[in-house]
Amino acid sequence: MKAASTTCGHRQPRILAALAPIEIADFLPEPLFSEMRALAGEFTVVDSQKVKADAMRTALTHYNPEVLVASWRADPLPVVLPPALRYVCFLGGSVRRLVELHHIDQGLLVTNWGNSVSRIVAEGALMLVLMSLRRAGDWNTRMHRDGYWINGSVASTCSLFGRRVGIHGFGNVGREFVRLLQPFGVAVSAFDPYVPFEEFAALNVQHVSSLDELFADHDIVVELAALSRETVGSVRGSHFAALPDGAVFVNVGRGAVVDESALIAAAQSGRIHFGLDVFHQEPLRADYPLRGLSNVVLLPHVAGPTPDRRADAGRFGLVNLRRYVAGLPLEAVVTREIYERTT
Amino acid sequence: MKAASTTCGHRQPRILAALAPIEIADFLPEPLFSEMRALAGEFTVVDSQKVKADAMRTALTHYNPEVLVASWRADPLPVVLPPALRYVCFLGGSVRRLVELHHIDQGLLVTNWGNSVSRIVAEGALMLVLMSLRRAGDWNTRMHRDGYWINGSVASTCSLFGRRVGIHGFGNVGREFVRLLQPFGVAVSAFDPYVPFEEFAALNVQHVSSLDELFADHDIVVELAALSRETVGSVRGSHFAALPDGAVFVNVGRGAVVDESALIAAAQSGRIHFGLDVFHQEPLRADYPLRGLSNVVLLPHVAGPTPDRRADAGRFGLVNLRRYVAGLPLEAVVTREIYERTT
Repeated sequence: MKAASTTCGHRQPRILAALAPIEIADFLPEPLFSEMRALAGEFTVVDSQKVKADAMRTALTHYNPEVLVASWRADPLPVVLPPALRYVCFLGGSVRRLVELHHIDQGLLVTNWGNSVSRIVAEGALMLVLMSLRRAGDWNTRMHRDGYWINGSVASTCSLFGRRVGIHGFGNVGREFVRLLQPFGVAVSAFDPYVPFEEFAALNVQHVSSLDELFADHDIVVELAALSRETVGSVRGSHFAALPDGAVFVNVGRGAVVDESALIAAAQSGRIHFGLDVFHQEPLRADYPLRGLSNVVLLPHVAGPTPDRRADAGRFGLVNLRRYVAGLPLEAVVTREIYERTT
Repeated sequence: MKAASTTCGHRQPRILAALAPIEIADFLPEPLFSEMRALAGEFTVVDSQKVKADAMRTALTHYNPEVLVASWRADPLPVVLPPALRYVCFLGGSVRRLVELHHIDQGLLVTNWGNSVSRIVAEGALMLVLMSLRRAGDWNTRMHRDGYWINGSVASTCSLFGRRVGIHGFGNVGREFVRLLQPFGVAVSAFDPYVPFEEFAALNVQHVSSLDELFADHDIVVELAALSRETVGSVRGSHFAALPDGAVFVNVGRGAVVDESALIAAAQSGRIHFGLDVFHQEPLRADYPLRGLSNVVLLPHVAGPTPDRRADAGRFGLVNLRRYVAGLPLEAVVTREIYERTT
């Protein structure tokens, strides 16, 4: 591994940025891109949108960078890494498409966007909760399509104020979601076996010890659990059956955490309202049975992060690069444990 | 006017409740209805849904109540009031359908739901802001109708975080809306010539001195102004033209505050996103030109208050009745000035 050049005790590493022009525009609007470039001894950009797997490999071999900056469009790293490569600063969330576990085991430093976009996903969850309670997707569709106006009753339209909200998966998004809920005076509970008790209490969230408990006693359940061997298919028919009439289930996490046939049966019953941004299989097939149901809000996996806030992730990556250059510990490092837990 | 019976210095007035069964269920769920009944020396209910104008007059004449409790379905009061009637406890917002100005001038006490449901309307405004920024109405409609999934770009989907929000009309709903915005770290300005400077500063809201200023410098404008001679048609084409591309305009106030042809032209241009719950003319006619536009979210005047929170208004009315019985000043009294300002 080559030694990096140093100035005033700081390294000036050779950086390869595998980013498409649209990714640079979204994640690293000026002055961020220039600031990143200024950190490098040598700075090269390959357009990840145009690069084929071989070309990416060629670029890595040719430039032999110490640091790779990449986002969603980058191709997977080769099995054998270029000799100088020490740090992958990934501007997105899941690194699984880019990095293999053995790379991390070999000592490759990998970071992702950490907590920088969690609040945007939480915002998407809040919107789906409100839309589901207010039946706004269906009102809007009928107003546009059917020349509709209400005839008498709006009895099914509900408010978030005073409700009991349950959260499955109390990670970064869950915590940001609790912050957005604060003005609504709701009682919040969460189930997450990986999070210590104290972290619930710190946010005034009640800890519940099972999924059964979470669904039995709440008007609204928000699904935010990471996909793992423990969570896949863990939300089942008995859980939906335990929700009261008119309850709301929102999923902005992972579609496969929910048992697919139980979801379809519960949605078709019409008893519960659903706000869904993620699905068991994406893209959603044209004849998916939830299409056309008035008690279901459907979004095509756009709850977050919105393009206008991707610079938050770019800024976060830039802070990590600065820390790397200064020899400081990095934030949001993807360890073996985190890699394995986040599918 | 008959003297009311008294117990321990409290009056026990004769109360007539002109309420439909659905209104009693929504506004005065138990124990509220029993608590109201317990305040009365005599308590009579007429079903306002079944009563014709003459029958309402007959009931008022026959029972000669000191207090009338009523909601939306009650018929207008007769020109000449029953001799004992001193107080109308209206459980809804605008009393204009029920009470005439000369009744107030004659000394009739009238209260409405005051601030008790403002937060619910504010919640509706927040939902429409998020739906408009996220283009969620259109995603949902296309997902349901067209077997849709995204192809590539979601570039137009935006977040509320970090935006500049302008509010036209800084009354109770506006203040509650500011509270809901707090976790989003937005810069909020408001225009309202009837509200003193200090009240803006108290909520960390920037005071702007004209509608032009409000539209020129904001990404999101929320319309909450009361309808009056000053505000009717006050939002014009020049205001929409001043908004940046992709800006959002939400109206949960009064439709007629917006110039109708300017609204239609701005919506048809596609440059701005609209979230509309109220319209110039309601019910909205079937061939209304905004139907079918993908940049417009349409709701049929359901932003608030939702039926599940109408008990908040009932509870507020009950508190006023208790104060009336105890001889204390009432809240949310509809004065001549307020009557004239709120159309």
